[in-house]
Amino acid sequence: MGKTKIIEVKESVFADNDREAALLREELKEKKSLLINLMSSPGSGKTSFLSRLINDIKERINIAVMEADIDSDVDARKIDEATGVRAIQLHTGGMCHLTAAMTRQGLEALPAEGFDLIFLENVGNLVCPAEFDTGAAMNMTILSVPEGDDKPLKYPLMYQVCDLVVINKIDTLPVFDFDVEKAKENIRMRNPKAEVFCVSAKTGEGFPAVEDWILKKAASL
Amino acid sequence: MGKTKIIEVKESVFADNDREAALLREELKEKKSLLINLMSSPGSGKTSFLSRLINDIKERINIAVMEADIDSDVDARKIDEATGVRAIQLHTGGMCHLTAAMTRQGLEALPAEGFDLIFLENVGNLVCPAEFDTGAAMNMTILSVPEGDDKPLKYPLMYQVCDLVVINKIDTLPVFDFDVEKAKENIRMRNPKAEVFCVSAKTGEGFPAVEDWILKKAASL
Repeated sequence: MGKTKIIEVKESVFADNDREAALLREELKEKKSLLINLMSSPGSGKTSFLSRLINDIKERINIAVMEADIDSDVDARKIDEATGVRAIQLHTGGMCHLTAAMTRQGLEALPAEGFDLIFLENVGNLVCPAEFDTGAAMNMTILSVPEGDDKPLKYPLMYQVCDLVVINKIDTLPVFDFDVEKAKENIRMRNPKAEVFCVSAKTGEGFPAVEDWILKKAASL
Repeated sequence: MGKTKIIEVKESVFADNDREAALLREELKEKKSLLINLMSSPGSGKTSFLSRLINDIKERINIAVMEADIDSDVDARKIDEATGVRAIQLHTGGMCHLTAAMTRQGLEALPAEGFDLIFLENVGNLVCPAEFDTGAAMNMTILSVPEGDDKPLKYPLMYQVCDLVVINKIDTLPVFDFDVEKAKENIRMRNPKAEVFCVSAKTGEGFPAVEDWILKKAASL
């Protein structure tokens, strides 16, 4: 395990982000690497979700993780300690989102090639990351129970761009006023095609279904 | 109560935001209006916090609320229904933060003058709002227990610019791995002068202390 690798990623000055993203997506498809861009509010449980999911499936598929943050290497260290899979930390230097160019810099800094599944944990932010195509084949977001079932109403773009929505911390449903059916309805209002799973990264409830779904996506590349 | 007033706020094209903010702050000081810029993650409980606080102190002080959001008027309606005080909704048209010019547009749209205390509920985002001076006399942030005690490490600027930090949802401490002392230590690492209060907007625990503190600030203008 040892010291976390930290990469200072920079936006390319002349970037046409959509073109960069399309090119990166094509390259990853050729390599049969599924890149998933994971976005959410701060504290919704991105890192805990990834830790459990990776531990469950890491014997079946070759996984790498890129953890983006404005500062600190808290997340990459957590993933590394919890799962032992390759995790690098991307620093955005204060920027609130990742571009395709920044994602490419992260991919090039991975210690090896040939990963079947790569998670990009974006900056914790429900607004800006949704505006930039990272080149990932799939966008996903986590909605945690304590945040409330109204978030798809208030952050429409995030839900519009996400193919996969995971409702996390369902072990805390008894202590929060969160209506799962209402949340699903709000999500579908933004994106009728979104796949929705309910999990608890704490207890493990609901993980097999989302793991199967992701493994199938990776196998179908 | 009736229909919520929705203002589409726009950034001024030639804005020197710091100058605009300083000017606005000066004007508000002359009017003895305390403007508090409330920032936090989505779902940390900004609106619930405001609803309870306003109900507790609205007989003692004249309060208005400006609720900013990318879309929806969920929050202004909530405040209006819960407290009956003047609440207007600012729409940022997709923008992830508020500038001083946008704040001024909100203030001008308030239905009256002479408010002693005005809350500006910023867009739910721990990153971008911290970068823009709104002209408020005070910045505050809410850290909710489910988000985790490490947030000040990961969103340094937010904690650097906030004079008041409220740790919310403390009724859920038994179900989350959140260390209050560790959180306070992380907050002080970013801002040794920050005032920290622990509350539950659900049960009301801890509210009298933060209410006294805010009322004193408003009285000392």
